[in-house]
Amino acid sequence: MNINKLLKPKKIAIVGASDKEGFGGDTCRNAMAYMSDDKYYFINPRRDEVFGKKCYESIRDLPEKVDMVVICTPVHTVEAILREAHEKGAGAAVVFASGYSEVGTEEGVERERSLIETCRSLDMALMGPNCAGFINYSDMVSSFAFISEERDRKGRVGFVSQSGQLALSMMDSPKMKFSYAISSGNSSVVTMEDYLDFLVDDEDTKVIAMYLEGIKDTAPFVAALKKAALKKKPVVILKTGRSRKGQEIAASHTGSLSGTDKVYDALFRKFGVIRVDDLEELMSTCMALSVMKRMPENPKVASMNLSGGETGICADLGELHGIEYANFGKDTMKRLKEVLPSYASPNNPLDMTATLSYDVDKYAEAVDIVMMDQDVGLVAIGYTLLQEIADPAIKYMTESLEKVLEDPMAKPVVMIPFTENTRNAEYSERLEKIGVPVLPTSNYAFKVLKNITGFIAYDASCHNLEVSIPEARKGEATPLSESESKNIIGSYGIPFPRTEVVKSLKQAHSLADDMGYPLVAKIDSPDIMHKSDAGCVMLNLKHADEVVDAYSEIIDNAVAYKKNAVINGVQLSTMVKSGIEMIIGVKNDPQLGPCIMCGLGGVFVEVFKDTALGLAPVSRIEAENMVDSLKGVKLLNGYRGSEPADKDAFVDAIVNVSRLATEHMNSMSELDINPIFVYEEGICAVDALYVKNV
Amino acid sequence: MNINKLLKPKKIAIVGASDKEGFGGDTCRNAMAYMSDDKYYFINPRRDEVFGKKCYESIRDLPEKVDMVVICTPVHTVEAILREAHEKGAGAAVVFASGYSEVGTEEGVERERSLIETCRSLDMALMGPNCAGFINYSDMVSSFAFISEERDRKGRVGFVSQSGQLALSMMDSPKMKFSYAISSGNSSVVTMEDYLDFLVDDEDTKVIAMYLEGIKDTAPFVAALKKAALKKKPVVILKTGRSRKGQEIAASHTGSLSGTDKVYDALFRKFGVIRVDDLEELMSTCMALSVMKRMPENPKVASMNLSGGETGICADLGELHGIEYANFGKDTMKRLKEVLPSYASPNNPLDMTATLSYDVDKYAEAVDIVMMDQDVGLVAIGYTLLQEIADPAIKYMTESLEKVLEDPMAKPVVMIPFTENTRNAEYSERLEKIGVPVLPTSNYAFKVLKNITGFIAYDASCHNLEVSIPEARKGEATPLSESESKNIIGSYGIPFPRTEVVKSLKQAHSLADDMGYPLVAKIDSPDIMHKSDAGCVMLNLKHADEVVDAYSEIIDNAVAYKKNAVINGVQLSTMVKSGIEMIIGVKNDPQLGPCIMCGLGGVFVEVFKDTALGLAPVSRIEAENMVDSLKGVKLLNGYRGSEPADKDAFVDAIVNVSRLATEHMNSMSELDINPIFVYEEGICAVDALYVKNV
Repeated sequence: MNINKLLKPKKIAIVGASDKEGFGGDTCRNAMAYMSDDKYYFINPRRDEVFGKKCYESIRDLPEKVDMVVICTPVHTVEAILREAHEKGAGAAVVFASGYSEVGTEEGVERERSLIETCRSLDMALMGPNCAGFINYSDMVSSFAFISEERDRKGRVGFVSQSGQLALSMMDSPKMKFSYAISSGNSSVVTMEDYLDFLVDDEDTKVIAMYLEGIKDTAPFVAALKKAALKKKPVVILKTGRSRKGQEIAASHTGSLSGTDKVYDALFRKFGVIRVDDLEELMSTCMALSVMKRMPENPKVASMNLSGGETGICADLGELHGIEYANFGKDTMKRLKEVLPSYASPNNPLDMTATLSYDVDKYAEAVDIVMMDQDVGLVAIGYTLLQEIADPAIKYMTESLEKVLEDPMAKPVVMIPFTENTRNAEYSERLEKIGVPVLPTSNYAFKVLKNITGFIAYDASCHNLEVSIPEARKGEATPLSESESKNIIGSYGIPFPRTEVVKSLKQAHSLADDMGYPLVAKIDSPDIMHKSDAGCVMLNLKHADEVVDAYSEIIDNAVAYKKNAVINGVQLSTMVKSGIEMIIGVKNDPQLGPCIMCGLGGVFVEVFKDTALGLAPVSRIEAENMVDSLKGVKLLNGYRGSEPADKDAFVDAIVNVSRLATEHMNSMSELDINPIFVYEEGICAVDALYVKNV
Repeated sequence: MNINKLLKPKKIAIVGASDKEGFGGDTCRNAMAYMSDDKYYFINPRRDEVFGKKCYESIRDLPEKVDMVVICTPVHTVEAILREAHEKGAGAAVVFASGYSEVGTEEGVERERSLIETCRSLDMALMGPNCAGFINYSDMVSSFAFISEERDRKGRVGFVSQSGQLALSMMDSPKMKFSYAISSGNSSVVTMEDYLDFLVDDEDTKVIAMYLEGIKDTAPFVAALKKAALKKKPVVILKTGRSRKGQEIAASHTGSLSGTDKVYDALFRKFGVIRVDDLEELMSTCMALSVMKRMPENPKVASMNLSGGETGICADLGELHGIEYANFGKDTMKRLKEVLPSYASPNNPLDMTATLSYDVDKYAEAVDIVMMDQDVGLVAIGYTLLQEIADPAIKYMTESLEKVLEDPMAKPVVMIPFTENTRNAEYSERLEKIGVPVLPTSNYAFKVLKNITGFIAYDASCHNLEVSIPEARKGEATPLSESESKNIIGSYGIPFPRTEVVKSLKQAHSLADDMGYPLVAKIDSPDIMHKSDAGCVMLNLKHADEVVDAYSEIIDNAVAYKKNAVINGVQLSTMVKSGIEMIIGVKNDPQLGPCIMCGLGGVFVEVFKDTALGLAPVSRIEAENMVDSLKGVKLLNGYRGSEPADKDAFVDAIVNVSRLATEHMNSMSELDINPIFVYEEGICAVDALYVKNV
């Protein structure tokens, strides 16, 4: 399968060409608007001409081979046309028709299975079905089925969307310019992972935007993300299915299987993917990243506004969205005081006062002073660019910025408006030309700023850029006993107190003295999970006699609790002093593999849900970041004057568990270490559960 | 002072009238555009005519009395003009000039003090200084100093803004329509609280919008909020100063004193004020509330969209913003299945599929079915209304909605777009006419939805609509000793263990036996706050001898720790069993009075900052809501199968502390009860601190 035949075809044929309303007609209209006449053919057995251009009866009749066919005809015609196209040399097709797996019927699912099979046998790259096609703005190829207002759309954002409606909305947004616009539909032959890979490699694409409901195959998706991370090419993804309701909808819409959503967060963090909440944030983030001529060298922002009200809003929204404001140096302050009116104070966020916006030179000087401050990475200009220009300030400000940004070393500048409005086209364009994106309204703008500063702070070398993708399993989850669990986990360097399983009164008596007191006795059985409820845990045993009594009582209680329970014996462990109570867990996601969780134990995890996730294998820095992202890390760092706990040892434990999880990815369902005590020096795990699944 | 002379004048004079650019010229242009010719006079000693209208040399020369003067001349001319205007019967003035307290100089502050004094002595209602004036759209009066694009702006949102720039931005937004648009500047004579009060009373104003940096006088502000709450008239406030940086800026901008910001949250919660994050949210929330013809009867939302992508976004954003989606009843599902295409599933959020938007009757039927569901309070239509209409869907959808909303009992409908764009004017207007507000882009739209549903859920009768505003104090904060603190707090029904202060070895010995064991001994001294650090706490004393020893040691340690400490004696208390560790605290805000805080104690409050605030006096329901808003309430409600704790007793304690705080608002600085144990039955406070300030 050659995706270039699909996305970069030399010649195409449009089957179902028409001059009416609808898919056929609109696809032809787009072809004529975007493509040179010799690059496309019209096919329709019922027409001689369409829009005055010759129309062929069938693909067979074409005077030459084509790379790709656009199929505008109904679902039952598709496979025959594919075969015909294949005979005429085509290696690719776009299929608009719906009626496949997305309708949710058995018939639809079967139809899609057959379509995939046909494409595989013919080695054809198929876009869709149930899609709206694509436009390649680099080579000017259109197979798009919807008409948008005419305007120059050639740019450097490559997008691929599983929703045709959202694709159309992006095309309709006046601020977006594309290298590729792809509505991929069910993406069942050429998959989302294929498109991603293509766009990561494509030199004309600077920023990648995706609307994603789910992926089919993890390995190529991860490989493409890795390539993007290493190239530092931004990938911005809107993935629905964060909420329970959203997951249901994603599943029913394109028949994608949404993985557990939080695992996607961990995946995206690993590869520096920017995750967004809605379409506007997706578009604006991509637009800003593609318009800026340079990336900021540090994530600290300077905010410059024309009024106190706007400055106050920027101060508050900055804090709300976690933006770090640069601290102006003394020299900056002094120089600003010289250029600002006497009643203005040189803070950041800065109220320059409206006066300055009517003075091209002074305004330029103020921006230049702020830019020169070494703490500043990016300058955010607060100004509401309207559609109808009433005030000359924007003229002066734009001239100032044009002057300042002549310097190729000038730092990046963005513009933040305070009301929603289509921005004046002339000034948007002038600003875009000098690399200044006009962001959407303030609350969005600060999210976009956070996306940008987060992206530049991402360092691929801190991450383990692998994912442990498990084979498909059909087995059942089977818990091991506590001692078996401890054995496996302990063999990966997680310290447990000395534990022995005794199988007789005599053995209990003699081992107890050898282990020393106090001891804890528990049943060791894979069939009894809630040992305390079953009366199968005895704490603080201080003499051999107490141990022997405990042994008998625990066995009796176990049998009473569950008649046919498999009993390995009674587990004796030395009691450990308590420390800061933490937990480490792993859940093995069927799509993305083992996902490690760490957090504070006890009520913290259940009441405050203060946990962090990382996708195995995690690097040591990833493990550290997980721990540091916990609110409760304050307890580990030394709380209320107490000594700091051994965070390093806990981080090591996470890395070790990650190694275990990766090595057992095909045989483990989940594991839990709860609690694991962290001391001033060292750590000790107390209880553990390992659930296998082969 | 008569605010009607300012905001509803019969005749006005514009001093400094001009046909040039600038304040004078633009104010005249606005007057001519908005007002009938007989309502205003131009004054300028250097002109005979302005824009062809007679111009008088001075106010004295006017042929009749005027109610109000608009002063467009520089700062040094203002006071003389005020006196002249007063002689001509004027009771009000608008002053644009800056150079007052906002410049931060001594001279400016003094100039403003003098201006206030002059207005007081002349009984004049003055808007400004440093303002941009106002427009009264009800009576068509303009004193506004900036020009906006011409359009019909008469509507029912009354706004008052301390920032002229933000006022202008609201005027420039095509979606806003006003009863009053007021740029109040320094608001030092007619204050923000005066404007609020006016707008609450004003029958032409349906919704009040405020951009607020700070208030001058609490009592009238609170009185106006109370009136609005009881009328259920929505008050929407953008108050900057949430962040540390924002507070600094608010202070420097209009010289307002920003109170501690979180106290404002508590204030706004009490009176059902909608607090917003930025200007767009302020405008859209007000616009939506003013356009909707009815308020939803319940806060549950139905979301109806034309694509799976949009539906997924709505599902996720709904959860993110805490929107509750209605559960469709069986009948609704059945009827929807009949009208939707076969491949659509009747969920909420609902993907109706694009097909339906081309069928006026079916679309109307689908909306009607959803509206009839008794769980639905409000219908949110997802659709990106563009400026240039390319697709006929909006025509059909609008016709459908016009049909459905003919029924006066129809439930409220809003429209949610997915990209930022100026909305097509024709369709915005048609939708507005039938009460359908077109909200801003999705993330904002869901915040606005949350504001609306939160507002309708507010019930004034659940709140104590008073605030305990303290007198200004000059004293110093003086902590009481622990036993004194416990005495005051205990007298308000907060239970403490039996506590006695003993002043001799002998007394210690005899009282100990009487109190019973175990006992705790602590120093009782207002000068030693950190008793443990000073070695002045001894726990778990089990015999009289131990108590006697502890007594001596504590006194010795206290003297060693702080030589001249006032020592009341040694405090003996019976030891209590531990329960769920909570805290209650009070801080007395100089502007808004005692603010009660409750939360989980220990690490919870310091690491997780899991606390809730309420402004005294709090009603029992307010106290309950505070406790229920804690994440840690799960612990009180019975956690991991444990019995629920006595939440009622803890809520009572909050109400009692609130009563104490209100009665002591003029003499208390703060208090802390930490910890207070909550048991399955009852509560017991263990330690307390009361800091007085007279």
